[in-house]
Amino acid sequence: MKKLINAPTSVVDEAVAGFAAAHPGLVTVSHDPTFIVRVDAPRQGKVGLVSGGGSGHEPLHGGFVGYGMLDAAVPGPVFTSPTPDPVLAATKAVDGGAGVLHIVKNYTGDVLNFETAAELADAEGIEVRSVVVNDDVAVKDSLYTAGRRGVAGTVLVEKIAGAAAERGDDLEAVASIATKVVERVRTMGVALTPCTVPHSGEPSFTLRDNEIEIGIGIHGEPGRERIPLEPADAIVDRLLGAILDDMPLAAGDRTLLMVNGMGGTPQVELYIVYRRAAEILAERGVEVTRSLVGNFVTSLEMQGASVTVLHLDDQLTELWDAPVQTAALRWGR
Amino acid sequence: MKKLINAPTSVVDEAVAGFAAAHPGLVTVSHDPTFIVRVDAPRQGKVGLVSGGGSGHEPLHGGFVGYGMLDAAVPGPVFTSPTPDPVLAATKAVDGGAGVLHIVKNYTGDVLNFETAAELADAEGIEVRSVVVNDDVAVKDSLYTAGRRGVAGTVLVEKIAGAAAERGDDLEAVASIATKVVERVRTMGVALTPCTVPHSGEPSFTLRDNEIEIGIGIHGEPGRERIPLEPADAIVDRLLGAILDDMPLAAGDRTLLMVNGMGGTPQVELYIVYRRAAEILAERGVEVTRSLVGNFVTSLEMQGASVTVLHLDDQLTELWDAPVQTAALRWGR
Repeated sequence: MKKLINAPTSVVDEAVAGFAAAHPGLVTVSHDPTFIVRVDAPRQGKVGLVSGGGSGHEPLHGGFVGYGMLDAAVPGPVFTSPTPDPVLAATKAVDGGAGVLHIVKNYTGDVLNFETAAELADAEGIEVRSVVVNDDVAVKDSLYTAGRRGVAGTVLVEKIAGAAAERGDDLEAVASIATKVVERVRTMGVALTPCTVPHSGEPSFTLRDNEIEIGIGIHGEPGRERIPLEPADAIVDRLLGAILDDMPLAAGDRTLLMVNGMGGTPQVELYIVYRRAAEILAERGVEVTRSLVGNFVTSLEMQGASVTVLHLDDQLTELWDAPVQTAALRWGR
Repeated sequence: MKKLINAPTSVVDEAVAGFAAAHPGLVTVSHDPTFIVRVDAPRQGKVGLVSGGGSGHEPLHGGFVGYGMLDAAVPGPVFTSPTPDPVLAATKAVDGGAGVLHIVKNYTGDVLNFETAAELADAEGIEVRSVVVNDDVAVKDSLYTAGRRGVAGTVLVEKIAGAAAERGDDLEAVASIATKVVERVRTMGVALTPCTVPHSGEPSFTLRDNEIEIGIGIHGEPGRERIPLEPADAIVDRLLGAILDDMPLAAGDRTLLMVNGMGGTPQVELYIVYRRAAEILAERGVEVTRSLVGNFVTSLEMQGASVTVLHLDDQLTELWDAPVQTAALRWGR
């Protein structure tokens, strides 16, 4: 295992410390328990947004803490859910009296621990609503999941719900918009190589030299099938085909097309994927009116990519376009 | 070789097409010869900024085309300089009558081809100035270089010179500011793994399982030494030590600290590197007043990172902070 780390046990703490040092105007970090929070939290009267999950998917979630997006992010150990304690602490830290929305990727550990934290917060008088993201069309259930997994679409939920909270929507409205995004977003991914969790020191799975995994999960969970390596366009046809089977889009529908790198994929490859995905949508008369290309929800150094389609409307477009200022996503400020 | 591509020969064209499709409000692409240019080029009375070089280093340079940064970027084949033709075409496309600045990374092919293009442009009545970036302290000469290589510091030159051009500085002033950045910026990198150029299909060099290359070039050129893998902090001590040996900074000096991923490095590792680099500077009383962490000048899927220090002053800080709107760097708009 070759990594730029000091010790497997210190990866998350040191990375979080570096993150705080690099973005002092944006976030502060609480240690013991560990969470990343906006410098200006809590904001009185504003709905607080908290997300989190295992580390190793950066910039998710810490990179999305800031104006117009998350108020706090709770990083667990690599690929392991944070316990309820730090989630509760983050929830309290961002509560400005208007309640708190939890945005949870659909993994059993995350769902349970955020649920417990929400109950504890409720007992302390903080109203919490939760939205579970489950955008991955690849598999019905998975290694760590009952139901579909939450993957790259989470970024879109965080951005759009964050914009709603920032403009002053109440908890009910912010939760409702987050749910709307969840209902209208779909993702599927592919892995060319596995990744290695520092603690284990071994690749999370194995692929032959000429083999890829279609429908990979962001922890290396099995997808739909292993096939021999194909040209990029054929792979994109599979990914987008699965998405469109699940989410029929009509000609004239407007979409946000996201191509997400898994961490170790050169950017030229992401744009090759984008090109073909945009072509397929154009062939169906579906308009791509917004785009996002880059590493947003990663699996350490895994090579591969995912394609995400969000069915936009005027409301979602306006909230997507609203100003945002985080380490990983920024415009309009 | 496992890559999300259709064919080695079509990588750059398809990636550029995907880039143009993803960022229609920002850039357009010229094919034959290939270059990426701001949608609003040429801007009358504004100095035009052109950079370019071999592909495989994305987001450099196309990701930095837009308001407040480059007017055009010329991508060559992977790791191969573009010929003078597209550089000339890009130069003409951005000329708004105030002259054009070429920002050239110090590699023999790039320097020669940009020089030829500048002469051809001059013959057509366009005034061109060139600034050669050579921030890599690792080696004096290199496989493709007479003198030091131009690496991650190029992004800082492009941002700061771009801001000067955007506010209306004349060619002499923009060139002078770019030169000032070159004089005040230093970089050194490390590779944990090699990368594979699509055309060759083989890794650009080999490293043993437990070996790293200190002072790596962005095409996998040899650096200073190969050593057994060390803890991240020890590696950062080497990189920053070499930089500070070359650029003595006094207590109270202000700097921009950049940690750049080589393409395949998980973001947690970049922040672990940042943390230690910031610590070392703090120990010397050097202030880090601006930061940049992420994949900016990559080597395809290489794992590794570089550390860059720019000695700031009021002028450079103001230009760094100025609004920018490109695919890879955006704030204030």
